[in-house]
Amino acid sequence: MTGEDEDSDGREGTGEREAFDAVTAAVGERIAPDAAERERMREAVETLRGRAEDAIADLPVAADVVQVGSTARGTWIAGDRDIDLFVRFPADLERDRLESYGLEVGHAVLPEGREEFAEHPYVTGEHDGFDVDLVPCYRLDSATEIQSAVDRTPFHTEYLAERLDDELAGEVRLFKQFLKGVGAYGSDLRTRGFSGYLTELLVLEHGGFRETVAAAADWQPPVRFDPEDHGIAEFDDQLVLIDPTDPERNVAAVLSADNVARLQHYARDLLESPREELFFLDPTEPLSAEAVREHVQRRGTTPVAVRFNAPDVVEDQLYPQLRKSLSGVRDELDRRGFDPLRTAAFADESAVLLVELEVPERPRVERHEGPPVAVRPHATGFFEKYADDEDAYGPFVDGDRYVVEREREFVAAREFLESEALLDVALGVRVASALKHDYDVLVGEEIATLAGEFGTELAAYFDPRP
Amino acid sequence: MTGEDEDSDGREGTGEREAFDAVTAAVGERIAPDAAERERMREAVETLRGRAEDAIADLPVAADVVQVGSTARGTWIAGDRDIDLFVRFPADLERDRLESYGLEVGHAVLPEGREEFAEHPYVTGEHDGFDVDLVPCYRLDSATEIQSAVDRTPFHTEYLAERLDDELAGEVRLFKQFLKGVGAYGSDLRTRGFSGYLTELLVLEHGGFRETVAAAADWQPPVRFDPEDHGIAEFDDQLVLIDPTDPERNVAAVLSADNVARLQHYARDLLESPREELFFLDPTEPLSAEAVREHVQRRGTTPVAVRFNAPDVVEDQLYPQLRKSLSGVRDELDRRGFDPLRTAAFADESAVLLVELEVPERPRVERHEGPPVAVRPHATGFFEKYADDEDAYGPFVDGDRYVVEREREFVAAREFLESEALLDVALGVRVASALKHDYDVLVGEEIATLAGEFGTELAAYFDPRP
Repeated sequence: MTGEDEDSDGREGTGEREAFDAVTAAVGERIAPDAAERERMREAVETLRGRAEDAIADLPVAADVVQVGSTARGTWIAGDRDIDLFVRFPADLERDRLESYGLEVGHAVLPEGREEFAEHPYVTGEHDGFDVDLVPCYRLDSATEIQSAVDRTPFHTEYLAERLDDELAGEVRLFKQFLKGVGAYGSDLRTRGFSGYLTELLVLEHGGFRETVAAAADWQPPVRFDPEDHGIAEFDDQLVLIDPTDPERNVAAVLSADNVARLQHYARDLLESPREELFFLDPTEPLSAEAVREHVQRRGTTPVAVRFNAPDVVEDQLYPQLRKSLSGVRDELDRRGFDPLRTAAFADESAVLLVELEVPERPRVERHEGPPVAVRPHATGFFEKYADDEDAYGPFVDGDRYVVEREREFVAAREFLESEALLDVALGVRVASALKHDYDVLVGEEIATLAGEFGTELAAYFDPRP
Repeated sequence: MTGEDEDSDGREGTGEREAFDAVTAAVGERIAPDAAERERMREAVETLRGRAEDAIADLPVAADVVQVGSTARGTWIAGDRDIDLFVRFPADLERDRLESYGLEVGHAVLPEGREEFAEHPYVTGEHDGFDVDLVPCYRLDSATEIQSAVDRTPFHTEYLAERLDDELAGEVRLFKQFLKGVGAYGSDLRTRGFSGYLTELLVLEHGGFRETVAAAADWQPPVRFDPEDHGIAEFDDQLVLIDPTDPERNVAAVLSADNVARLQHYARDLLESPREELFFLDPTEPLSAEAVREHVQRRGTTPVAVRFNAPDVVEDQLYPQLRKSLSGVRDELDRRGFDPLRTAAFADESAVLLVELEVPERPRVERHEGPPVAVRPHATGFFEKYADDEDAYGPFVDGDRYVVEREREFVAAREFLESEALLDVALGVRVASALKHDYDVLVGEEIATLAGEFGTELAAYFDPRP
C-alpha cells in the first residue's frame, strides 16, 4: 500500500528512478567531453585569445576578448568543435570602425579565415580542428542597451558562468542531447527548436535534467518563467522564458508549438520507459522512389509538388520564405476546393513546396451565391450579370438568395499550379523570383522523382513520428 | 426632365403603366368566371345547401351550412370547380357526435361521395361537374376558440366577404394567377407557397394587384402585416401576416423563404416588362434520359440517388418526410467529405432523394485531430490508441496537437449509401420503413433511368429558373 500511495502522489517507484538514473549516467558518459578534449579546447582558446590580444594592442582603441557559447560555459557535447570569441569594443566607437577593427583582429587570429556577415561582418576559420568565429561587439553596462543581438551574448555567458557548476553543466548536456535526439534542438529558423541558452536556463530553473523533463511532461501552455522576476512584456508564445539579462525579451520566441509539444511527448515517454535510444534516435532512412509510389497508392491522396531552384540565401532566410510560400499555395488550393491534407517544404539544390491533396479535381460547375433577392439593386445586378450567361446554370432562388452554378476557373489542381495564377498567391520574395524564372509541377506518383534529392525528407513525411 | 424625375421618384412613366394595365386587363379577362359559370356555380351551391339543410332538419341538434373558400368569396379562377360547404354544429357537441352527424349530412348531400379524413372525417364527391367537400365543424364566437383548423375557415370567409367587393376580387384573381404562373401558389407542404387566404389578405392590405406586386418587389424581409393591429406573438418567418381573426396566428407560417424571394423576383420582372406569359409560364418539358446524361457530363458532378417505393401517405405528410430525409442524407454525405452541391426530392410511384455531389470519392486516409499534447491524460490516451494501429499514419505532432491519418470508413459515396449506415441518418419515419424494406442507389449517369418517371422534375432541376 505504501508503495502505491507514493506512486499516486507522483513520486516514482525506486525501480523506475534507478532505471532513469542508469540511462542518464550512460548517456552522460557518452556525451561528456573527456579530459583530453577539454585540455585541447583550453589550449586552443588560450592560443587564439593570445593572438587576439596581441592584435588589439596594435589598435588605437581598447578592447577585450571574451569566450562565449557552450564551449565557454562547459555545456558542450563531446565532439562539438565550435569556439566563439567576441572582441568587445567601447560603446561609443562608430560602427564602421568597430567593423574594420573587428575584421583586422579576426584576420590576425585566423590567417586562413574568411569574412561572413551576420549582424556585423566577422571572421570564421579553423584552428587545430576547431571551428572558430571571431566576432566584434560593443561592451555595454547592460544587455538592455544593446545595439545588435551579438552584443547580448556576453551577458548570457556571464550570467550562466556564475550559476552553472560542473554538475549542472552535465545536466544541461543531457537535456541538449535529449532535444537533439527528438529533433527539437536548435533555434535556427528551419528547426525553430530550443536554443542552447534556453536549454541552459530551463535546467537552471528546474535544478536538473530529470526535474526539467518531469516539469515539461506536465506543462499546460502558455508556460512562463521569469528567473529574475523582472519581465515587463507580455508574449503570445506557448513557452515564455524572460531573458535574465533583458526583461523585454522572450528567450523562447523562436520556438514553435510543435517543438513544445514534441518535448512534452518525449519527456513523458522517457519518464515512462527510460532508454538510451531516445537520446540518439536513428537517422531516418531515405525512401526510394518505389516506396514513395507505394505510399501514394496506399494513401489514395494526390500529392502535388512545385519544384524550383533553391534561392541562394542562408537557411535562416530560406526557410521562413519557403514556409510563407507553402502556406500561400496551400491556402489557395484550399480556397479552390482541392482540400489539402498535409504540407511540407524541402530544400537542397532544389526547393520543393509539397501539398498533399484529398481532392485533385472538382466539377466543371461551381456554386456561386448571390445576394439576398430582397437587396434589390445588388440582387438585380447579380441576376442581370448571369441571366444570359450560356455557361451558367441559373440564376435560381435558393432560400432567400440568388444562386448560379458557373464555370469553375480551374477544374484540376495541376491546371492551377501550371498557370500564372500561382504567382498571385502570397510567396516569399526570393521564392517568387525563382518561380518566375522556372518551375516544375509534379502530381501524384510523379513526386517519386523527388526521392533522389529528398529521400530522407520524404521518409519523415510518410512515416511521421511525434 | 419632368418625365425622368417621375421615374426616379419610383412613379412609372405613362407608357409603362399602360402596358401593365393592358396585360392585367387581358389576363383578367382570361381568368374571370363568366356569367354562365357563375350562374352554374350559384345553382349547384343552392341545390347542395338545400340537401344539407334537409338532412340537418332530421338531426337531434341545430346546425347551419356555410359556403367557404374562394368560390364563396368570388375569388376563384375561371375553371376552378371546388365547392366547400361547412356544416356548423353547436360548440358543446361531443366530438364523436359531430363526426357522425357530419358524415350523415355529407352522405345525404353527396350520395355517391366517399369519406376522407383531415382534421375530422368528411365527405367528398362530385355534383354537376364540381368537386364538393362537405365538412363538419363547430360554430364558435371567435376564431381564437377553435378546436381544429377547419373551425377557423368560416371566420376567414366572413372576414373577407365583408371587405372584398367585385373589383378587389378581380385583383385577387390576378395575384393568384400570377403566383400560380411563377410556381409560388399553394399552401400545401409540397409547394409551401401562398395560400388563397394569404393572397386575398395581401391584396386587401395593398388595395390592388399592382400595388401588391410593387410592394413585394421592395420587401425587406422580415416583413410584417397586421391588418387588425392585434398581433400578440413574434414570428421568425420572412413574411408575417397576423390573421385578422386570430391574433396568435401567422397566415404565412407555411410559406418558404424561396417562395418569398421568387415572388419578389417575378414581381420586379413583371413591373419592368409587363407580359401575359408570366401568368401562364409554360409547363416544363420533361428531360429524356439522354438529356440527363448530357447534363451530368457537362456539369462534371456526381449525382447520387436513393430510390424507393413512395410511402402510401398524403402529400402533406410525404413531402415533409422526404425533406427531412433528404437533409439527413445530404448532411451525412457532407460530413463524410462528399461535398453536396444541390439536392432535390421527387415522388410519384417511387420516391427519390437526389444529392448532386462535387466529390464522389476521397482518399483512403483521413485526418483525425487528437487533443493538445499538453492535456496529458487525454493526450496519452489518444496516443496509445493509435500508436500501434498499423493502418494509421502517426500519431504525429501538428502545432500543439496529436494528429493521425487513419483509415476512412467510406471512400466512395456509393459505399456509404449502399451500407446500413444510411439508416442511421435522420429520416422521416415512413421513409425509414421504406428504406429498411428496399431501395436502389443510382450514381452518376445512372440517374438517367429516373427520366421515365421524373422527366419533368429533372428538367426543373437541370434547368432551374428563379
